[in-house]
Amino acid sequence: MEDRLRKQLDFSLEIDKEKNIFRQTHLSGHGRNENDAEHAWHMAVMAYILREYANEDVDIAKVMIMCLIHDIVEIDAGDTYAYDTVSKETQREREEAAKKRIFSILPDDQKDELTALFDEFDAEQTAEARYARAMDNLQPLLLNDSNDGGDWKEHGITAEQVYGRQGRTKNGSEKLYEITDSIIKKHIQKGNLK
Amino acid sequence: MEDRLRKQLDFSLEIDKEKNIFRQTHLSGHGRNENDAEHAWHMAVMAYILREYANEDVDIAKVMIMCLIHDIVEIDAGDTYAYDTVSKETQREREEAAKKRIFSILPDDQKDELTALFDEFDAEQTAEARYARAMDNLQPLLLNDSNDGGDWKEHGITAEQVYGRQGRTKNGSEKLYEITDSIIKKHIQKGNLK
Repeated sequence: MEDRLRKQLDFSLEIDKEKNIFRQTHLSGHGRNENDAEHAWHMAVMAYILREYANEDVDIAKVMIMCLIHDIVEIDAGDTYAYDTVSKETQREREEAAKKRIFSILPDDQKDELTALFDEFDAEQTAEARYARAMDNLQPLLLNDSNDGGDWKEHGITAEQVYGRQGRTKNGSEKLYEITDSIIKKHIQKGNLK
Repeated sequence: MEDRLRKQLDFSLEIDKEKNIFRQTHLSGHGRNENDAEHAWHMAVMAYILREYANEDVDIAKVMIMCLIHDIVEIDAGDTYAYDTVSKETQREREEAAKKRIFSILPDDQKDELTALFDEFDAEQTAEARYARAMDNLQPLLLNDSNDGGDWKEHGITAEQVYGRQGRTKNGSEKLYEITDSIIKKHIQKGNLK
């Protein structure tokens, strides 16, 4: 087999490990914890279905692949809970090392391509990255809302913390931020958020 | 909230259930059974990484969304194992009913759009559908290969059965079919396939 294809298939097998990285979010119906691969799948489908609400015109293929790969680094770096300030401090360092190792399995041109997509998502400076980030926020919000805010209650999360994260949805989609805001307000009222 | 957006969010929550539909394929490292959402995620990433091997030029956004949604019907219809001839007989009927119910949660235009994408994938008559089908075959093959053919051994699958399914990969990618063929031949030689 050609070296190029061998590398691409090695990468394809390596990323299977993302299915073993579990998040703090629980599936709807008070289900088990969600894993990164499922989360990425859900974000990508939602990005497609909700694309009319992106603030700016987006290249939907780019948004989808960004959603699909944005957590691959967690194979090595582990999931960092959005509201865990201690782990947040070392997150960049852990994810940089993971990014180098995992994307280096690919041929050089694809290593560069996926690294660039990952960095673009992370920087939130393009229309696609801002909209993809909105999905990264809205997807777990929908699940947590369906579970009566259970993930927040379990960790004693405050409204301020949730607004700190979910506020960035506005940069990708004003419309979806309206919904986000109404969901957060509902949970404050219900006492699910401190 | 507008009726249109409400429907889109209801659909977004409904498809969460796909994460509870488990397949016969096992994760690499002799892991647990894989679920449909993870499988769809894996297929879509592979479709992107391996797109240079598609026999024909493909619209990669269309391929990815096709991969991502192709198993949503299994929320109602359940997973039908590729080599289960009895379940295969009722598969179309079960999946048609599921398709109607689940895609009808969406606004009419998107119901039509996703139904058309699902049907296109199923019919394998376009470049995108043929290439997406190649991913539907190659993704579990890679996992099963990494597990020394364990999924085949467990069910006593024959080489003829595997060629019957995997042969269609050729229509989407001659190159990836070469790899498929060499993997199958290796497992025949090792006695993992009857």
